[in-house]
Amino acid sequence: MNLILLFEDDFTSPLTSPLTSAGEVRLHDRRLTHIRDVHRALPGDQLRVGLLNGAMGSGQLLSLSEHEAVLRVELDTPPPPPLPLTLILALPRPKMFKRTLAAAASMGVKDLWLINSYRVDKSYWGSPLLTEAGLREHLLLGLEQACDTQLPQVHLRKRFKPFVEDELPELCRGRRALLAHPYNAQPCPSASDESTLLAIGPEGGFIPYEVEKLVEAGLSPVHLGPRILRVETAVPALLSRLFTF
Amino acid sequence: MNLILLFEDDFTSPLTSPLTSAGEVRLHDRRLTHIRDVHRALPGDQLRVGLLNGAMGSGQLLSLSEHEAVLRVELDTPPPPPLPLTLILALPRPKMFKRTLAAAASMGVKDLWLINSYRVDKSYWGSPLLTEAGLREHLLLGLEQACDTQLPQVHLRKRFKPFVEDELPELCRGRRALLAHPYNAQPCPSASDESTLLAIGPEGGFIPYEVEKLVEAGLSPVHLGPRILRVETAVPALLSRLFTF
Repeated sequence: MNLILLFEDDFTSPLTSPLTSAGEVRLHDRRLTHIRDVHRALPGDQLRVGLLNGAMGSGQLLSLSEHEAVLRVELDTPPPPPLPLTLILALPRPKMFKRTLAAAASMGVKDLWLINSYRVDKSYWGSPLLTEAGLREHLLLGLEQACDTQLPQVHLRKRFKPFVEDELPELCRGRRALLAHPYNAQPCPSASDESTLLAIGPEGGFIPYEVEKLVEAGLSPVHLGPRILRVETAVPALLSRLFTF
Repeated sequence: MNLILLFEDDFTSPLTSPLTSAGEVRLHDRRLTHIRDVHRALPGDQLRVGLLNGAMGSGQLLSLSEHEAVLRVELDTPPPPPLPLTLILALPRPKMFKRTLAAAASMGVKDLWLINSYRVDKSYWGSPLLTEAGLREHLLLGLEQACDTQLPQVHLRKRFKPFVEDELPELCRGRRALLAHPYNAQPCPSASDESTLLAIGPEGGFIPYEVEKLVEAGLSPVHLGPRILRVETAVPALLSRLFTF
C-alpha cells in the first residue's frame, strides 16, 4: 500500500470537486491498520493519498486511535496516465487470476476483457473473484501498490465466438491489435505509446481454431522468444515491451 | 509443467553424453502424476522432456501405471539461451520470493544474487526457501514452465556493505550496470543483448545510503515510469524491457 485510496464516503465534509479538493477523512478499516502497523505513523506525519477515480495528494495525520485515523487531505495531482490498451485475457485459474488482476492494475491497464477459451476450465467462471466485489478487491490492491486512482473496467465474456465475431473487430479498429502466441509469430514490437489491443491465451494456449478466429478479427500473432511464461509473468513482460510508460 | 525435467538418476541405462543422448527413464514422483492427470497421456504419446543442465527433446511414453511412467527419450536440442544478466535482489518476503524465483527462472535468469538491505526483515533470512532444496524447488518450477534446463546459480549475501564494496565493483566491470530506482533516474534503456547487471530493491526501496553505495560501485539508476511495482511484477517488466529474447 504505497498510496492510501480514499472513497467519497470517507470524507466528513463534502468534496469541492473530485479533481482538486481538500477535506477531512476518517478511516476505520484495513487502511487504519496499515497506517498504524506498517507506516507506524504519528500525528503530524504526511501520507500519500488518492481519491478513487480522482486526484492524488497528501494527507496529514491529525489523530490516530485503535478505532480511527483522522487525516486532513489535499488532492492536487492527477493520477499517472493510463496505458492506451485494451487487454484481453482468457480467464486464468483463480489463484493466478488474483495476482494477474493486481499486476495489470499496477501497470496501468484500464480496460480488461476476460473471455472464454477451449482451455479455460468451466469452473473458473463460478469463482467469487468474478463478482464486482471480488474484482474490485484485487484491482484496488494494484492501484494502492502503484500509486494510481483510476479503477480499471472489467468486461466478462463467457462465450468465445460471439465475442470474437461481434465485438472484437470493432475493438481492433484503427489500432495495433496483437495476439501473444509463440507460433508463426513476429517478434513483439518495441515500446511506443500507440493505442493497442493485446490478447493473451490460457495455460496451454488458444487452440488453432481460436487462433484462426482471432486472426480473422484482426489480431497479429507476436512472441517474446521461445520461453513459455505464466500469464502473471507474461502480462508485465508484454506490457513493458509494448509501452514507453 | 510444459517440459518434463529429467535427472541423471531417472535413466535406467547410462547416458551417452549430457548434450545429445537417448535412453529410457522411469518416473515415480509428481512428474508421473502430471503425465497421468494433466497430460492424460497414453502409451505412444510424445512428451516434451529435457535433462537438467543438458539437452531437450522428446520422450515417447512406453508404459504408464499407478506407480511408474516409462519413457524412451531422445535429447537433441539445446535449451534456450540464458539472459546475459546478473540479477541482484534485496531478499523479498518469502511468499513473494517464491513467485519471483520461478518467474526469474522462467525468463532465463541464470545468475541471481540475494542481498540484505535496511528494509529486508531479518526473519526472511531464516526462511526454509533459502536452503538448497527450497531454492531448487521453485527454480525447477520456472524451468518446467518455460521449457529450459539450465538451473540458475543463486548466491546469498547477508551483509550489504561487504558485498557492495568488495564484490559488486568486479561484477559490474565491463558491462551495463543498472539500479531499478524511481528517483533521480534515467528511463530504463531499451532492449539489447548486452551483458547487464541489474539490482532491484526491497519493498519501500533501498535507503539513500544504500543507493549511494550502489552508485559508487558503478550502478546507474533507471526507472520504468512513475508506477511502483511489486518485485514479482518488476522483474518480468524490467527484463522484458532490457533484453531482446
